[in-house]
Amino acid sequence: MPRYRLDVEYDGTAYAGWQRQAGQHSVQAAIEQAISAFSSEGVGIRGAGRTDAGVHATGQVAHVDLARDWPDDTVRDAVNAHLVAAGEAVSITAAGRVPDDFDARFSATARHYLYRILNRRSPPALEKDRVWHVQKRLDADAMHAAAQVLVGKHDFTTFRSVQCQAKSPVKTLDRFEVASHGDLIEVRASARSFLHNQVRSMVGTIKRVGEGAWTPADVRTALEAADRAACGPVAPPQGLYLVKVDY
Amino acid sequence: MPRYRLDVEYDGTAYAGWQRQAGQHSVQAAIEQAISAFSSEGVGIRGAGRTDAGVHATGQVAHVDLARDWPDDTVRDAVNAHLVAAGEAVSITAAGRVPDDFDARFSATARHYLYRILNRRSPPALEKDRVWHVQKRLDADAMHAAAQVLVGKHDFTTFRSVQCQAKSPVKTLDRFEVASHGDLIEVRASARSFLHNQVRSMVGTIKRVGEGAWTPADVRTALEAADRAACGPVAPPQGLYLVKVDY
Repeated sequence: MPRYRLDVEYDGTAYAGWQRQAGQHSVQAAIEQAISAFSSEGVGIRGAGRTDAGVHATGQVAHVDLARDWPDDTVRDAVNAHLVAAGEAVSITAAGRVPDDFDARFSATARHYLYRILNRRSPPALEKDRVWHVQKRLDADAMHAAAQVLVGKHDFTTFRSVQCQAKSPVKTLDRFEVASHGDLIEVRASARSFLHNQVRSMVGTIKRVGEGAWTPADVRTALEAADRAACGPVAPPQGLYLVKVDY
Repeated sequence: MPRYRLDVEYDGTAYAGWQRQAGQHSVQAAIEQAISAFSSEGVGIRGAGRTDAGVHATGQVAHVDLARDWPDDTVRDAVNAHLVAAGEAVSITAAGRVPDDFDARFSATARHYLYRILNRRSPPALEKDRVWHVQKRLDADAMHAAAQVLVGKHDFTTFRSVQCQAKSPVKTLDRFEVASHGDLIEVRASARSFLHNQVRSMVGTIKRVGEGAWTPADVRTALEAADRAACGPVAPPQGLYLVKVDY
């Protein structure tokens, strides 16, 4: 069966997350239904990152096996036509044949996330549900300094959801950078893989440094505690975007 | 009565436009209701630009006269609290006392608009209602060249809505620039004032150049015709943003 890679963009606001769940509206199920509607096949797809409810993507990647050998652009356009018709906030930005051993989840060599904070007094009108609105002035440079404490290979138990199913809490964080552009603070995180809620847990922790409540040394203490209770408040989902997956 | 300038951001999707209209939900009425709710006064505000239904703003400006001399930040925060409580997609980004002769509409010396086109095959998921989605590949350089034909002082009758109430169709267009950033084409237009639908009419016309249907010379012919029938299809509202007003 020909295997296709799908590049996927979505507004996660109205979804229970990427993962198909009984009785819930998920991004995965929306795409599977659109593929079935066009190919008349019951299909299952696998995604690179199982984003939580409310989390967005500009560069999620999934793969699917189809019975027929469709042209790449036909797959993209036909799935999009059914997604639009169903009113889904999901778009296939590219579709393409890949070798049978390509696996969107297990072949990935790096995942790149962006976390956006709107740091101003007034609530967002245009960016509602697309940023974390923080009213207290944050020091982005201090956040960046604190973020560097977390870069490298560590036991990230402190920054791991209790629901995390990963075998090991040890991960290598390749990049964790904070930059401000006017009222917007952008945090970029890259790693081969992340623990469940790791990015949001790390962002919530360095935000405490940004508001002056913690120092970078406190972040190091929290990391070394390897204790979920040492984590700052987890940042909300609507600021998080899966922007790219490397293979 | 103390006069306040209000800087306003809004997502125009759910509004019948800026202007208060009987039986319609307008941005102006949303703000007037929020001001009344906090100040217990019946107030009328005036905006710099009467944006159409579906048009957005990051830098609309309005003024209002209040009976009491409130601190600036109190005005901003109290109006925002009532806007949020009412579920409005409108935010006051700044409020400040201005002289009694400041008029948001008549004191303005320049208005700056941004028009965003998403130029790709796949429909927008995150930018739905915030861009004009154009699937056919556009030549942004050709659009920019055509745009320069329109810069300067001209009779803009071709690019004027039949509903336009301006006394004269003669306006001076100070800037009309097109630049592409990946899949996104950004068009920036600046003038002291614009005719009704002028920016969207001009964008719809240079888009014809971008897709190869017209040349810049055709745009000159259309301009010189001074005839509404010579205009290209008017670009849809959801790509347009009022970004800044100068005083």
